[in-house]
Amino acid sequence: MLDIDDTLRKYADLTIRVGLNLQPGQRLAIIGPLANGGVSLDAAPLVRCLTETAYRAGASYVEAIWGDEALQLVRFSHAPRDSFEATSRWLGPALLDHVRAGDAVLMIYANDPDLLGSYDPEQITMVQLATARAVRPFRDLLAKNATNWTIVAAASAAWARKVFPEAAPEVALARLWDAIASLCRLDQPDPTAAWRAHLAALDARKERLNARRYSALLYSGPGTRLTIGLPDRHVWVSGQSTSGNGILFAANLPTEEVFTMPHKNQVDGIVSATKALSYGGSLIEHLRLRFSGGRVVEASASAGEQVLRALLATDEGAGRLGEIALVPHGSPISKSGLLFYSTLFDENAASHLAVGSAYKSTLSGGEEMSDEDFERAGGNRSLTHVDFMIGSGELDVDGRHADGTTEPVMRSGEWVT
Amino acid sequence: MLDIDDTLRKYADLTIRVGLNLQPGQRLAIIGPLANGGVSLDAAPLVRCLTETAYRAGASYVEAIWGDEALQLVRFSHAPRDSFEATSRWLGPALLDHVRAGDAVLMIYANDPDLLGSYDPEQITMVQLATARAVRPFRDLLAKNATNWTIVAAASAAWARKVFPEAAPEVALARLWDAIASLCRLDQPDPTAAWRAHLAALDARKERLNARRYSALLYSGPGTRLTIGLPDRHVWVSGQSTSGNGILFAANLPTEEVFTMPHKNQVDGIVSATKALSYGGSLIEHLRLRFSGGRVVEASASAGEQVLRALLATDEGAGRLGEIALVPHGSPISKSGLLFYSTLFDENAASHLAVGSAYKSTLSGGEEMSDEDFERAGGNRSLTHVDFMIGSGELDVDGRHADGTTEPVMRSGEWVT
Repeated sequence: MLDIDDTLRKYADLTIRVGLNLQPGQRLAIIGPLANGGVSLDAAPLVRCLTETAYRAGASYVEAIWGDEALQLVRFSHAPRDSFEATSRWLGPALLDHVRAGDAVLMIYANDPDLLGSYDPEQITMVQLATARAVRPFRDLLAKNATNWTIVAAASAAWARKVFPEAAPEVALARLWDAIASLCRLDQPDPTAAWRAHLAALDARKERLNARRYSALLYSGPGTRLTIGLPDRHVWVSGQSTSGNGILFAANLPTEEVFTMPHKNQVDGIVSATKALSYGGSLIEHLRLRFSGGRVVEASASAGEQVLRALLATDEGAGRLGEIALVPHGSPISKSGLLFYSTLFDENAASHLAVGSAYKSTLSGGEEMSDEDFERAGGNRSLTHVDFMIGSGELDVDGRHADGTTEPVMRSGEWVT
Repeated sequence: MLDIDDTLRKYADLTIRVGLNLQPGQRLAIIGPLANGGVSLDAAPLVRCLTETAYRAGASYVEAIWGDEALQLVRFSHAPRDSFEATSRWLGPALLDHVRAGDAVLMIYANDPDLLGSYDPEQITMVQLATARAVRPFRDLLAKNATNWTIVAAASAAWARKVFPEAAPEVALARLWDAIASLCRLDQPDPTAAWRAHLAALDARKERLNARRYSALLYSGPGTRLTIGLPDRHVWVSGQSTSGNGILFAANLPTEEVFTMPHKNQVDGIVSATKALSYGGSLIEHLRLRFSGGRVVEASASAGEQVLRALLATDEGAGRLGEIALVPHGSPISKSGLLFYSTLFDENAASHLAVGSAYKSTLSGGEEMSDEDFERAGGNRSLTHVDFMIGSGELDVDGRHADGTTEPVMRSGEWVT
């Protein structure tokens, strides 16, 4: 078992140097998942370590916007029923100001995957919608990589209990940190060098896909037979990007995916999720969607179906796809055999799709496009963006060229070339 | 020893009902001392309890702005030397927005009294000045009672260690909560009723002083011989006030003081503090000031003198008085024999003065006055406001009428009538 303090230091170092590539004199804002309003108090040890590392790297000011999950529970239990559309008036503007000013933005996930499992889905949806509206300008700018940003995770008691339900609390927490350390390659002699090599390999994979210019991908596996059209100018993206202010950064640590943009009107067939999805404090299990002309026309789940329906009804774009990502079934996270109930990890264990907004960075010239032009080019727009996993050892993916010919991209969940 | 959960519930109830008098539908912002940027993570148990109580009372939205003291330490240890004037861009506007919108504002003190004791006073001063400037519009509006606001305390490990240095950490924390419970009358059968009676008694005391229309107060005690002129239209204020939005509230829990405004140009003589002063994470001991024509002309301290000098040099008004408060030596907090290193408690154990800004609410019509008119009437203006204790069992206070006659107000630290 690793020394947790040592793990924190190495993760902080990797986050500041490789994830954010924080520049001397730059400010750093540390926040939490948008739905939570701020970084969980449970993440305090990692936040402190990150703050020290950031200042040592020359940060001019580090501030954290904290959010206590317990206050969310108190709200759902005791707030007046007609108050669930209320939201912070200053949080959205504060976040937006950080991005506009070119501060580095670090999002830490340390949350209980089914915090709100027992609460009224309608109220949860109301809160999520209000929050999504409040932070939309911030999220839109971040999705355009206006500044350098990164998402990392911190083990917390509630999350560890979910991943290791059989273990004693202390043991579960240590095991979750162990898993994070191993999957973030912190146990390698030089984690930074290991990441530079890994990011270069992802980069090469992305370049090969970009060279193919597929017009569509065809998915088939148990419960899945789906065709997804790709816009003419789609761009495959992997671990690293360059921000609008010219900083090379890696938006997720860990990351194993290459991803691009589906055409919002060219998705047809059926797809079944291969992992449970934790969404806004609720678990959605055995999710299954049928698409026609890009839109979800049927949706079901064995648990959390009401939350799923509310998610898809968020707005017009919430029932269409905004991202397709390919991850080999043999990725380290997949091989760990763990289900993290956290998109940051689970999305890197399996090929996946996302309903909701597309990233303008996955369309050539997209970052300079108006919203209308982006939509005309096939880009989906929505208040939401939620990944769900469809990869497995039984998933085949084919690429179709404009002339109708196809070639294998993945077989039994692994890259063909 | 009391049950801490029971103490939290009772303190939360008193805070929401008597302190804030939170109105149904009103929002509540929970913050920390202004110098700390937010409420200490150590206060989480009380914050959660307060949030529940507020929602049960009909609050439409409760949000906390948290600040981690450990991040301050990390900053002073590791941030670039030229970065100490940086401050949050959004905190000041966020606080101001809460007051302007008429939200209830609750400030919780749970901080380490000498957090920054070993750091460079010059850097501390730089940070404090930058923060004071950023939050000034908020503080000015709060000082005018634009909305209902309250300051309470939460025991924290570091604070408890300072108050009970001999006790084991768990014991110290429990003893500090015990002391808070007893001094906030939470151990009485009906704390709310006890507070209503106590606030009525303070109110009567204040009315008697207002009826006297003293033109000056004369202080004498060991190391103290001071004359303080009172403006013609000074108003004595006690525990309860009515906010600009019409809500009767008590700004401090506990509170034992009656206070008013000195004339900023009419303070002459010498005064010696009777307790150590915790200011911005440093302790100032044996503070001694000589005034002439309202201004401090000599200042000394046996410890923290550099911090004291920096405080007095903050701006023109920082070297003049802005508040005078009378507290009997027999107050429950004084009788506890404890030194809290926290103004909220220590100011209610002893008569005190404050350097820095005066409250517009302590001048008749002051809340509607421009800053210039307020100053012309004798009101002091400054970025800072720091209380220091001068009361003891040996302090005598006399009131002087406009005709030059005097009468005793306090003898040996107790009220004469």
